[in-house]
Amino acid sequence: MDAASNEHSGSRPPRRQRSDGERSRAAILREAARLATVEGLDGLSLARLAAAVGMSKSGLFAHFGSKEELQLATIAAARRRFVDHVVRPSRGLPRGRGRLDALLGDWLDYFRGEVFPGGCFFDSVKSEFDSRPDNAVREVVAEDMRQFLGFLEREIRKAQEAGEIAASVEPAQLAFELDALGSAANQQFQLLGDRAVFDRAATAMRSRLDLVDPE
Amino acid sequence: MDAASNEHSGSRPPRRQRSDGERSRAAILREAARLATVEGLDGLSLARLAAAVGMSKSGLFAHFGSKEELQLATIAAARRRFVDHVVRPSRGLPRGRGRLDALLGDWLDYFRGEVFPGGCFFDSVKSEFDSRPDNAVREVVAEDMRQFLGFLEREIRKAQEAGEIAASVEPAQLAFELDALGSAANQQFQLLGDRAVFDRAATAMRSRLDLVDPE
Repeated sequence: MDAASNEHSGSRPPRRQRSDGERSRAAILREAARLATVEGLDGLSLARLAAAVGMSKSGLFAHFGSKEELQLATIAAARRRFVDHVVRPSRGLPRGRGRLDALLGDWLDYFRGEVFPGGCFFDSVKSEFDSRPDNAVREVVAEDMRQFLGFLEREIRKAQEAGEIAASVEPAQLAFELDALGSAANQQFQLLGDRAVFDRAATAMRSRLDLVDPE
Repeated sequence: MDAASNEHSGSRPPRRQRSDGERSRAAILREAARLATVEGLDGLSLARLAAAVGMSKSGLFAHFGSKEELQLATIAAARRRFVDHVVRPSRGLPRGRGRLDALLGDWLDYFRGEVFPGGCFFDSVKSEFDSRPDNAVREVVAEDMRQFLGFLEREIRKAQEAGEIAASVEPAQLAFELDALGSAANQQFQLLGDRAVFDRAATAMRSRLDLVDPE
Protein backbone atom coordinates (compact mmCIF):
# COMPACT_ATOMS: atom_id res chain seq x y z
CA MET A 1 0.00 0.00 0.00
CA ASP A 2 2.85 2.34 -0.89
CA ALA A 3 0.74 4.77 -2.85
CA ALA A 4 -1.67 5.19 0.05
CA SER A 5 1.04 5.96 2.54
CA ASN A 6 2.87 8.26 0.13
CA GLU A 7 -0.26 10.26 -0.19
CA HIS A 8 -0.31 10.98 3.51
CA SER A 9 3.38 11.62 3.88
CA GLY A 10 2.94 15.43 3.99
CA SER A 11 3.52 17.07 7.41
CA ARG A 12 -0.16 17.72 8.12
CA PRO A 13 -0.75 18.63 11.77
CA PRO A 14 -3.54 16.76 13.56
CA ARG A 15 -7.13 18.09 13.69
CA ARG A 16 -6.43 20.88 11.19
CA GLN A 17 -9.26 21.58 8.76
CA ARG A 18 -8.71 20.32 5.22
CA SER A 19 -7.33 23.12 3.06
CA ASP A 20 -8.77 24.05 -0.31
CA GLY A 21 -5.78 22.34 -1.88
CA GLU A 22 -6.55 19.08 -0.11
CA ARG A 23 -10.23 19.32 -0.94
CA SER A 24 -9.53 19.87 -4.60
CA ARG A 25 -6.90 17.13 -4.60
CA ALA A 26 -9.56 14.71 -3.34
CA ALA A 27 -12.04 15.94 -5.97
CA ILE A 28 -9.43 15.58 -8.72
CA LEU A 29 -8.59 12.03 -7.68
CA ARG A 30 -12.23 11.05 -7.49
CA GLU A 31 -12.74 12.22 -11.06
CA ALA A 32 -9.44 10.65 -12.14
CA ALA A 33 -10.53 7.23 -10.83
CA ARG A 34 -13.88 7.55 -12.62
CA LEU A 35 -12.24 8.52 -15.90
CA ALA A 36 -9.60 5.79 -15.58
CA THR A 37 -12.22 3.03 -15.52
CA VAL A 38 -13.58 4.29 -18.82
CA GLU A 39 -10.53 5.57 -20.70
CA GLY A 40 -7.76 3.61 -18.99
CA LEU A 41 -5.31 4.82 -16.39
CA ASP A 42 -2.75 5.40 -19.11
CA GLY A 43 -5.26 7.31 -21.19
CA LEU A 44 -5.68 9.69 -18.29
CA SER A 45 -4.11 12.84 -19.67
CA LEU A 46 -3.60 15.91 -17.53
CA ALA A 47 -5.43 17.91 -20.23
CA ARG A 48 -8.49 15.61 -20.20
CA LEU A 49 -8.59 15.52 -16.42
CA ALA A 50 -8.14 19.32 -16.13
CA ALA A 51 -11.14 19.78 -18.42
CA ALA A 52 -13.23 17.29 -16.40
CA VAL A 53 -12.58 19.02 -13.06
CA GLY A 54 -12.62 22.57 -14.47
CA MET A 55 -9.03 23.46 -13.68
CA SER A 56 -6.11 24.65 -15.77
CA LYS A 57 -3.52 22.10 -16.78
CA SER A 58 -0.87 24.01 -14.84
CA GLY A 59 -3.12 24.08 -11.76
CA LEU A 60 -3.38 20.32 -11.99
CA PHE A 61 0.35 20.02 -12.52
CA ALA A 62 0.87 21.78 -9.18
CA HIS A 63 -0.85 18.81 -7.48
CA PHE A 64 0.95 16.03 -9.34
CA GLY A 65 4.52 16.34 -10.52
CA SER A 66 4.30 13.54 -13.07
CA LYS A 67 1.83 11.29 -14.81
CA GLU A 68 3.05 8.33 -12.76
CA GLU A 69 2.48 10.27 -9.54
CA LEU A 70 -1.07 11.06 -10.69
CA GLN A 71 -1.65 7.39 -11.57
CA LEU A 72 -0.43 6.13 -8.19
CA ALA A 73 -2.46 8.73 -6.28
CA THR A 74 -5.52 7.75 -8.34
CA ILE A 75 -5.04 4.09 -7.39
CA ALA A 76 -4.74 5.07 -3.72
CA ALA A 77 -7.99 7.06 -3.95
CA ALA A 78 -9.76 4.17 -5.69
CA ARG A 79 -8.47 1.80 -3.02
CA ARG A 80 -10.05 3.95 -0.29
CA ARG A 81 -13.40 3.78 -2.09
CA PHE A 82 -13.06 0.01 -2.44
CA VAL A 83 -12.32 -0.32 1.28
CA ASP A 84 -15.32 1.87 2.16
CA HIS A 85 -17.71 -0.15 0.00
CA VAL A 86 -16.38 -3.68 0.30
CA VAL A 87 -13.96 -4.19 3.17
CA ARG A 88 -15.29 -1.98 5.96
CA PRO A 89 -19.08 -2.58 6.20
CA SER A 90 -18.84 -6.17 7.50
CA ARG A 91 -16.00 -5.48 9.98
CA GLY A 92 -18.42 -5.15 12.89
CA LEU A 93 -19.88 -8.64 12.46
CA PRO A 94 -18.52 -11.62 14.38
CA ARG A 95 -15.90 -13.62 12.49
CA GLY A 96 -17.40 -16.55 10.60
CA ARG A 97 -19.57 -17.58 7.70
CA GLY A 98 -22.03 -14.71 8.22
CA ARG A 99 -19.28 -12.12 7.92
CA LEU A 100 -17.88 -13.81 4.82
CA ASP A 101 -21.38 -13.86 3.26
CA ALA A 102 -21.83 -10.15 4.06
CA LEU A 103 -18.44 -9.29 2.60
CA LEU A 104 -19.17 -11.16 -0.65
CA GLY A 105 -22.60 -9.51 -0.82
CA ASP A 106 -21.01 -6.07 -0.38
CA TRP A 107 -18.51 -6.88 -3.12
CA LEU A 108 -21.26 -7.80 -5.59
CA ASP A 109 -23.23 -4.69 -4.54
CA TYR A 110 -20.18 -2.54 -5.25
CA PHE A 111 -20.19 -3.92 -8.82
CA ARG A 112 -23.97 -3.65 -9.12
CA GLY A 113 -23.97 -0.06 -7.84
CA GLU A 114 -21.43 0.96 -10.48
CA VAL A 115 -19.33 2.90 -7.99
CA PHE A 116 -17.01 3.44 -10.94
CA PRO A 117 -18.66 3.96 -14.35
CA GLY A 118 -16.35 1.50 -16.15
CA GLY A 119 -16.66 -1.29 -13.57
CA CYS A 120 -14.30 -2.20 -10.78
CA PHE A 121 -11.35 0.19 -10.90
CA PHE A 122 -8.89 -2.59 -10.10
CA ASP A 123 -10.23 -4.95 -12.74
CA SER A 124 -9.93 -2.18 -15.34
CA VAL A 125 -6.40 -1.29 -14.37
CA LYS A 126 -5.03 -4.80 -13.90
CA SER A 127 -5.47 -5.85 -17.54
CA GLU A 128 -4.16 -2.49 -18.70
CA PHE A 129 -0.87 -2.89 -16.85
CA ASP A 130 -0.40 -6.65 -16.52
CA SER A 131 1.99 -6.93 -19.48
CA ARG A 132 4.32 -4.11 -18.51
CA PRO A 133 7.33 -5.35 -16.59
CA ASP A 134 9.15 -2.99 -14.20
CA ASN A 135 6.23 -0.61 -14.09
CA ALA A 136 5.43 1.03 -10.74
CA VAL A 137 1.68 1.06 -11.42
CA ARG A 138 1.73 -2.65 -12.29
CA GLU A 139 3.51 -3.45 -9.03
CA VAL A 140 0.99 -1.52 -6.96
CA VAL A 141 -1.96 -3.16 -8.74
CA ALA A 142 -0.41 -6.64 -8.33
CA GLU A 143 0.08 -5.95 -4.63
CA ASP A 144 -3.57 -4.85 -4.34
CA MET A 145 -4.66 -8.12 -5.97
CA ARG A 146 -2.50 -10.13 -3.55
CA GLN A 147 -3.97 -8.13 -0.65
CA PHE A 148 -7.55 -8.86 -1.67
CA LEU A 149 -6.90 -12.59 -2.18
CA GLY A 150 -5.07 -12.66 1.18
CA PHE A 151 -7.96 -10.85 2.82
CA LEU A 152 -10.49 -13.42 1.53
CA GLU A 153 -8.16 -16.19 2.65
CA ARG A 154 -7.92 -14.79 6.20
CA GLU A 155 -11.71 -14.43 6.39
CA ILE A 156 -12.09 -18.08 5.36
CA ARG A 157 -9.53 -19.13 7.96
CA LYS A 158 -11.37 -17.16 10.68
CA ALA A 159 -14.63 -18.87 9.68
CA GLN A 160 -12.83 -22.21 10.00
CA GLU A 161 -11.61 -21.21 13.46
CA ALA A 162 -15.19 -20.32 14.36
CA GLY A 163 -16.23 -23.84 13.27
CA GLU A 164 -18.35 -22.45 10.42
CA ILE A 165 -16.33 -23.72 7.46
CA ALA A 166 -14.97 -27.27 7.29
CA ALA A 167 -11.36 -27.53 8.48
CA SER A 168 -10.51 -29.67 5.41
CA VAL A 169 -10.90 -26.68 3.08
CA GLU A 170 -7.72 -25.06 1.75
CA PRO A 171 -8.34 -21.34 2.32
CA ALA A 172 -6.25 -20.16 -0.68
CA GLN A 173 -8.14 -22.50 -3.04
CA LEU A 174 -11.54 -21.31 -1.83
CA ALA A 175 -10.38 -17.65 -1.96
CA PHE A 176 -9.31 -18.19 -5.59
CA GLU A 177 -12.74 -19.58 -6.47
CA LEU A 178 -14.76 -16.85 -4.75
CA ASP A 179 -12.60 -14.13 -6.28
CA ALA A 180 -12.98 -15.72 -9.74
CA LEU A 181 -16.78 -15.70 -9.50
CA GLY A 182 -16.99 -12.03 -8.45
CA SER A 183 -14.44 -10.83 -10.99
CA ALA A 184 -16.13 -12.71 -13.83
CA ALA A 185 -19.51 -11.21 -12.94
CA ASN A 186 -18.04 -7.70 -13.06
CA GLN A 187 -16.35 -8.31 -16.39
CA GLN A 188 -19.37 -9.90 -18.04
CA PHE A 189 -21.62 -7.12 -16.79
CA GLN A 190 -19.24 -4.52 -18.21
CA LEU A 191 -19.13 -6.16 -21.61
CA LEU A 192 -22.59 -7.71 -21.98
CA GLY A 193 -24.64 -5.40 -19.73
CA ASP A 194 -26.67 -8.25 -18.24
CA ARG A 195 -27.26 -7.83 -14.49
CA ALA A 196 -28.26 -11.49 -14.13
CA VAL A 197 -24.55 -12.34 -13.89
CA PHE A 198 -24.51 -10.98 -10.33
CA ASP A 199 -27.21 -13.48 -9.36
CA ARG A 200 -25.20 -16.23 -11.06
CA ALA A 201 -22.14 -15.24 -9.01
CA ALA A 202 -24.16 -15.04 -5.77
CA THR A 203 -25.74 -18.45 -6.43
CA ALA A 204 -22.35 -20.01 -7.15
CA MET A 205 -20.74 -18.46 -4.04
CA ARG A 206 -23.58 -19.66 -1.82
CA SER A 207 -23.51 -23.21 -3.22
CA ARG A 208 -19.75 -23.34 -2.88
CA LEU A 209 -19.89 -22.21 0.77
CA ASP A 210 -22.85 -24.46 1.63
CA LEU A 211 -20.77 -27.36 0.37
CA VAL A 212 -18.09 -26.67 2.97
CA ASP A 213 -20.53 -26.08 5.81
CA PRO A 214 -19.30 -28.40 8.58
CA GLU A 215 -22.84 -29.11 9.79
CA MET B 1 -18.21 -13.55 -36.33
CA ASP B 2 -18.52 -10.61 -38.73
CA ALA B 3 -14.84 -9.81 -38.78
CA ALA B 4 -13.97 -13.38 -39.74
CA SER B 5 -16.38 -13.46 -42.62
CA ASN B 6 -15.38 -9.96 -43.79
CA GLU B 7 -11.83 -11.15 -43.99
CA HIS B 8 -12.76 -13.84 -46.48
CA SER B 9 -15.16 -11.75 -48.53
CA GLY B 10 -12.62 -11.26 -51.37
CA SER B 11 -13.35 -13.16 -54.59
CA ARG B 12 -10.62 -15.74 -54.13
CA PRO B 13 -10.98 -18.68 -56.54
CA PRO B 14 -10.74 -22.16 -54.99
CA ARG B 15 -7.43 -24.05 -54.74
CA ARG B 16 -5.32 -21.07 -55.80
CA GLN B 17 -1.96 -20.78 -53.99
CA ARG B 18 -1.78 -18.04 -51.36
CA SER B 19 -0.24 -14.92 -52.84
CA ASP B 20 2.63 -13.02 -51.24
CA GLY B 21 0.10 -10.41 -50.21
CA GLU B 22 -2.01 -12.98 -48.39
CA ARG B 23 1.01 -14.53 -46.72
CA SER B 24 2.23 -11.21 -45.47
CA ARG B 25 -1.25 -10.24 -44.36
CA ALA B 26 -1.34 -13.38 -42.20
CA ALA B 27 2.13 -12.61 -40.82
CA ILE B 28 1.13 -9.01 -40.07
CA LEU B 29 -2.00 -10.10 -38.23
CA ARG B 30 -0.12 -12.70 -36.23
CA GLU B 31 2.30 -10.02 -35.03
CA ALA B 32 -0.55 -7.56 -34.49
CA ALA B 33 -2.35 -9.98 -32.18
CA ARG B 34 0.87 -10.60 -30.22
CA LEU B 35 1.52 -6.87 -29.83
CA ALA B 36 -2.09 -6.14 -28.91
CA THR B 37 -1.95 -8.43 -25.87
CA VAL B 38 1.01 -6.44 -24.57
CA GLU B 39 0.33 -2.88 -25.69
CA GLY B 40 -3.43 -2.96 -26.12
CA LEU B 41 -5.39 -3.15 -29.35
CA ASP B 42 -5.81 0.61 -29.31
CA GLY B 43 -2.10 1.12 -28.71
CA LEU B 44 -1.46 -0.82 -31.91
CA SER B 45 -0.15 1.92 -34.17
CA LEU B 46 0.57 1.30 -37.85
CA ALA B 47 4.07 2.69 -37.25
CA ARG B 48 4.81 0.30 -34.38
CA LEU B 49 3.41 -2.66 -36.26
CA ALA B 50 5.29 -1.74 -39.46
CA ALA B 51 8.54 -1.71 -37.47
CA ALA B 52 7.73 -5.08 -35.87
CA VAL B 53 7.06 -6.82 -39.20
CA GLY B 54 9.77 -4.97 -41.14
CA MET B 55 7.48 -3.17 -43.56
CA SER B 56 6.96 0.45 -44.47
CA LYS B 57 3.99 2.22 -42.97
CA SER B 58 2.56 2.78 -46.44
CA GLY B 59 3.03 -0.92 -47.28
CA LEU B 60 1.00 -1.74 -44.20
CA PHE B 61 -1.60 0.84 -45.09
CA ALA B 62 -2.15 -0.99 -48.40
CA HIS B 63 -3.39 -3.99 -46.38
CA PHE B 64 -5.65 -2.10 -43.97
CA GLY B 65 -7.50 1.04 -44.90
CA SER B 66 -8.09 2.18 -41.34
CA LYS B 67 -7.06 1.47 -37.78
CA GLU B 68 -10.47 -0.03 -37.06
CA GLU B 69 -10.11 -2.36 -40.03
CA LEU B 70 -6.72 -3.46 -38.70
CA GLN B 71 -8.21 -3.99 -35.22
CA LEU B 72 -11.10 -6.10 -36.52
CA ALA B 73 -8.82 -8.19 -38.75
CA THR B 74 -6.50 -8.72 -35.77
CA ILE B 75 -9.41 -9.99 -33.67
CA ALA B 76 -10.40 -12.38 -36.46
CA ALA B 77 -6.84 -13.71 -36.65
CA ALA B 78 -6.68 -14.14 -32.86
CA ARG B 79 -10.03 -15.92 -32.94
CA ARG B 80 -8.64 -18.46 -35.45
CA ARG B 81 -5.71 -19.18 -33.11
CA PHE B 82 -8.10 -19.57 -30.18
CA VAL B 83 -10.22 -22.01 -32.17
CA ASP B 84 -7.11 -24.00 -33.19
CA HIS B 85 -5.86 -24.27 -29.60
CA VAL B 86 -9.04 -24.52 -27.58
CA VAL B 87 -12.13 -25.35 -29.63
CA ARG B 88 -10.90 -27.79 -32.29
CA PRO B 89 -8.70 -30.40 -30.54
CA SER B 90 -11.53 -32.07 -28.57
CA ARG B 91 -14.04 -32.05 -31.47
CA GLY B 92 -13.22 -35.67 -32.37
CA LEU B 93 -14.15 -37.03 -28.93
CA PRO B 94 -17.63 -38.35 -28.19
CA ARG B 95 -19.97 -35.78 -26.66
CA GLY B 96 -19.99 -35.95 -22.88
CA ARG B 97 -18.02 -35.29 -19.73
CA GLY B 98 -14.74 -36.51 -21.27
CA ARG B 99 -14.98 -34.02 -24.12
CA LEU B 100 -15.83 -31.21 -21.70
CA ASP B 101 -12.82 -32.16 -19.54
CA ALA B 102 -10.56 -32.17 -22.61
CA LEU B 103 -11.86 -28.80 -23.76
CA LEU B 104 -11.28 -27.21 -20.35
CA GLY B 105 -7.81 -28.77 -20.22
CA ASP B 106 -6.99 -27.35 -23.66
CA TRP B 107 -8.20 -23.94 -22.54
CA LEU B 108 -5.91 -23.95 -19.50
CA ASP B 109 -3.03 -25.23 -21.67
CA TYR B 110 -3.61 -22.33 -24.06
CA PHE B 111 -3.11 -19.95 -21.12
CA ARG B 112 -0.17 -21.95 -19.75
CA GLY B 113 1.54 -22.10 -23.14
CA GLU B 114 1.37 -18.31 -23.49
CA VAL B 115 0.14 -18.49 -27.07
CA PHE B 116 -0.07 -14.71 -26.80
CA PRO B 117 2.68 -13.01 -24.78
CA GLY B 118 0.26 -10.80 -22.81
CA GLY B 119 -2.18 -13.59 -21.93
CA CYS B 120 -5.44 -14.47 -23.61
CA PHE B 121 -6.03 -12.05 -26.47
CA PHE B 122 -9.74 -11.80 -25.70
CA ASP B 123 -9.23 -11.15 -22.00
CA SER B 124 -6.79 -8.36 -22.85
CA VAL B 125 -9.10 -6.75 -25.36
CA LYS B 126 -12.36 -7.09 -23.44
CA SER B 127 -11.31 -4.83 -20.57
CA GLU B 128 -9.77 -2.38 -23.00
CA PHE B 129 -13.01 -1.88 -24.89
CA ASP B 130 -15.73 -2.74 -22.37
CA SER B 131 -16.46 0.90 -21.50
CA ARG B 132 -16.76 2.22 -25.05
CA PRO B 133 -20.33 2.31 -26.21
CA ASP B 134 -21.07 2.15 -29.96
CA ASN B 135 -17.63 0.85 -30.73
CA ALA B 136 -17.33 -1.79 -33.46
CA VAL B 137 -14.43 -3.54 -31.71
CA ARG B 138 -16.39 -3.73 -28.47
CA GLU B 139 -19.36 -5.30 -30.25
CA VAL B 140 -17.18 -7.95 -31.88
CA VAL B 141 -15.45 -8.77 -28.57
CA ALA B 142 -18.80 -8.95 -26.74
CA GLU B 143 -20.11 -11.31 -29.41
CA ASP B 144 -17.00 -13.48 -29.02
CA MET B 145 -17.61 -13.68 -25.27
CA ARG B 146 -21.25 -14.67 -25.83
CA GLN B 147 -20.09 -17.28 -28.34
CA PHE B 148 -17.64 -18.87 -25.91
CA LEU B 149 -20.16 -18.95 -23.06
CA GLY B 150 -22.76 -20.39 -25.45
CA PHE B 151 -20.24 -22.98 -26.62
CA LEU B 152 -19.55 -24.13 -23.04
CA GLU B 153 -23.29 -24.21 -22.39
CA ARG B 154 -23.92 -26.43 -25.42
CA GLU B 155 -21.13 -28.80 -24.38
CA ILE B 156 -22.69 -29.08 -20.92
CA ARG B 157 -26.09 -29.77 -22.47
CA LYS B 158 -24.62 -32.48 -24.70
CA ALA B 159 -23.00 -34.09 -21.64
CA GLN B 160 -26.42 -34.02 -19.96
CA GLU B 161 -27.97 -35.68 -23.01
CA ALA B 162 -25.25 -38.34 -22.81
CA GLY B 163 -26.25 -38.92 -19.17
CA GLU B 164 -22.86 -37.74 -17.91
CA ILE B 165 -23.92 -34.55 -16.14
CA ALA B 166 -26.97 -34.43 -13.87
CA ALA B 167 -30.11 -33.18 -15.64
CA SER B 168 -30.85 -30.84 -12.71
CA VAL B 169 -27.89 -28.61 -13.60
CA GLU B 170 -28.62 -25.31 -15.34
CA PRO B 171 -26.15 -25.25 -18.24
CA ALA B 172 -25.79 -21.43 -18.32
CA GLN B 173 -25.00 -21.33 -14.59
CA LEU B 174 -22.34 -24.02 -14.87
CA ALA B 175 -20.89 -22.39 -18.00
CA PHE B 176 -20.60 -19.09 -16.08
CA GLU B 177 -18.71 -20.83 -13.27
CA LEU B 178 -16.30 -22.74 -15.51
CA ASP B 179 -15.57 -19.62 -17.56
CA ALA B 180 -14.98 -17.60 -14.37
CA LEU B 181 -12.39 -20.09 -13.11
CA GLY B 182 -10.41 -20.17 -16.36
CA SER B 183 -10.52 -16.41 -16.88
CA ALA B 184 -9.41 -15.71 -13.31
CA ALA B 185 -6.45 -18.09 -13.66
CA ASN B 186 -5.31 -16.31 -16.82
CA GLN B 187 -5.61 -12.88 -15.22
CA GLN B 188 -3.85 -13.82 -12.01
CA PHE B 189 -1.05 -15.49 -13.95
CA GLN B 190 -0.62 -12.37 -16.06
CA LEU B 191 -0.41 -10.11 -13.04
CA LEU B 192 1.23 -12.27 -10.38
CA GLY B 193 3.20 -14.70 -12.56
CA ASP B 194 2.33 -17.71 -10.41
CA ARG B 195 1.61 -20.83 -12.50
CA ALA B 196 -0.05 -22.54 -9.53
CA VAL B 197 -3.26 -20.68 -10.41
CA PHE B 198 -3.79 -23.06 -13.35
CA ASP B 199 -3.78 -26.01 -10.96
CA ARG B 200 -6.23 -24.12 -8.73
CA ALA B 201 -8.54 -23.61 -11.71
CA ALA B 202 -8.21 -27.25 -12.83
CA THR B 203 -8.93 -28.48 -9.29
CA ALA B 204 -11.98 -26.25 -8.99
CA MET B 205 -13.34 -27.26 -12.41
CA ARG B 206 -12.91 -30.96 -11.62
CA SER B 207 -14.58 -30.67 -8.20
CA ARG B 208 -17.42 -28.68 -9.69
CA LEU B 209 -18.01 -31.28 -12.41
CA ASP B 210 -17.62 -34.26 -10.05
CA LEU B 211 -20.35 -32.69 -7.97
CA VAL B 212 -22.81 -32.88 -10.86
CA ASP B 213 -21.81 -36.39 -11.90
CA PRO B 214 -25.12 -38.28 -12.08
CA GLU B 215 -23.51 -41.53 -10.84
